[in-house]
Amino acid sequence: MSDFDFKGWMHAVQQRMETCLSANLPAETHLPERLHDAMRYSVLDGGKRVRPLLTFAAGMVVDADPERLQHAGAAVEMIHAYSLVHDDMPAMDNDVLRRGKPTVHVAFGEATALLAGDALQSQAFDVLTSRTLADAPADQLKMVNLLARASGSLGMCGGQGVDLFSVGKELSLPELELMHILKTGALIRCAVLLGSYCGRPLSDEERGRLDTYAKCVGLAFQVVDDILDCEADSATLGKTAGKDAANNKPTYVSLLGLAGAKEKAADLKAEALAALAPFGEKGVALAMLAEFIVERRS
Amino acid sequence: MSDFDFKGWMHAVQQRMETCLSANLPAETHLPERLHDAMRYSVLDGGKRVRPLLTFAAGMVVDADPERLQHAGAAVEMIHAYSLVHDDMPAMDNDVLRRGKPTVHVAFGEATALLAGDALQSQAFDVLTSRTLADAPADQLKMVNLLARASGSLGMCGGQGVDLFSVGKELSLPELELMHILKTGALIRCAVLLGSYCGRPLSDEERGRLDTYAKCVGLAFQVVDDILDCEADSATLGKTAGKDAANNKPTYVSLLGLAGAKEKAADLKAEALAALAPFGEKGVALAMLAEFIVERRS
Repeated sequence: MSDFDFKGWMHAVQQRMETCLSANLPAETHLPERLHDAMRYSVLDGGKRVRPLLTFAAGMVVDADPERLQHAGAAVEMIHAYSLVHDDMPAMDNDVLRRGKPTVHVAFGEATALLAGDALQSQAFDVLTSRTLADAPADQLKMVNLLARASGSLGMCGGQGVDLFSVGKELSLPELELMHILKTGALIRCAVLLGSYCGRPLSDEERGRLDTYAKCVGLAFQVVDDILDCEADSATLGKTAGKDAANNKPTYVSLLGLAGAKEKAADLKAEALAALAPFGEKGVALAMLAEFIVERRS
Repeated sequence: MSDFDFKGWMHAVQQRMETCLSANLPAETHLPERLHDAMRYSVLDGGKRVRPLLTFAAGMVVDADPERLQHAGAAVEMIHAYSLVHDDMPAMDNDVLRRGKPTVHVAFGEATALLAGDALQSQAFDVLTSRTLADAPADQLKMVNLLARASGSLGMCGGQGVDLFSVGKELSLPELELMHILKTGALIRCAVLLGSYCGRPLSDEERGRLDTYAKCVGLAFQVVDDILDCEADSATLGKTAGKDAANNKPTYVSLLGLAGAKEKAADLKAEALAALAPFGEKGVALAMLAEFIVERRS
């Protein structure tokens, strides 16, 4: 497709994000030490940084300054990290393993996990407003609003709510899709859109295309998650496998079967790639990320 | 002091805030219904709205549009409401009664309480960025940053962390003060500052005076809380009384004695009022609020 060094680019962004996230979290020597320790534990040295990678890849389309992109990516990643901390807690999924490490409430206790998640959400909005990230301050306000909506009860938290209240229920495919569009898709879409506000202005048509890409990739991400949850063992996945099925939670695999879920993921990838066509070579990182997300093994 | 109708003003702001908060929360008929029900339950029809009152009172100093002030006040109140929901949970204070009603986790379950608190925090940043609240977008970005910092690990969450990790420990007066400056003071200070950004520009000297006022009132609020917690019974307070002392948490009363704590509250009020002097009649609502906060009985 091109001579773009995707692996090298991905590695460079991941390294850059690690440094940026660390710099945007108070040191564990800062009072209250235990809280900052837990915040750093949950955010640093873990994860593929899929959302910041999407932010950087979208930034390539608009020739955005990487200095801006890393802070926008850090904000999204902090929201993602806080949601995992709270989602793993006994009141929710009661998971003890995440990215191969004990979950935050196991390592630090429930009260600290609750507070660390709360503080990470605040920190995300702090990072997004501590410096100039868009040419116009009004665009940066729009970025904050996008992140707030993607995170709240009509976005990620709403999806978790639908998920929570659906345990043991039969969901139809449209209901399952709505749940995941909120639960995983909203923040992934936001990661792409935030990157797109860090550089040159986009036409409505261009932003619409990025949005189509983002929606398809967000949903594909969850379909693949369900496939991996069904196929993989806990060691490969770095978290407890088969948990959703055991909890009688509906998944794409339970609704479509394994082959049907794989076909769905492939269709979504094709739609995402088609939306990128007019961006030409500037869309190459987004294209390869779609490939990476759908073909990943963990 | 003046013919300003404080009670009438307070009542009008409280009514206006109820309408504004309700309008800024999704209906309980909106999916996921149970989550929105819990969010509305925790925010509406409860509390004295001290923080929005401070936002409106500070707005009077800068001739701010009430339309702007109500949304700034709503954002602060949502952060306050979410912190109460999470603070009441079993992992934290394990309180069953709040404002005379069952706490959110008692009424809706722990998982919903966790999610409702998370979603309320997001909603606060949504409200603060959904419309123009300051003449310059850059000032509005500053408002978002103030709220994020006041809420996070170097603000309210940090204070809750210091509180959490201090149970059973001896705290010195400076340590106790630092804890409360973070836990309660940061958000109260933010409520005042947000109001001050909604109107005419302030000089550094003027903003410094408002800040002094806000810091004193924030601390006084907590000192009075400790006094009331020691003196009142649960019926008057609308929450479980004497809980901090029973949990061996340090309070102003345990450190200074009841008389000493009352003197401290009076000193802080005097310092707050002195800082307002140059604002003349435009500072009257702030002055009367300081009075109200220190003299309240619940």
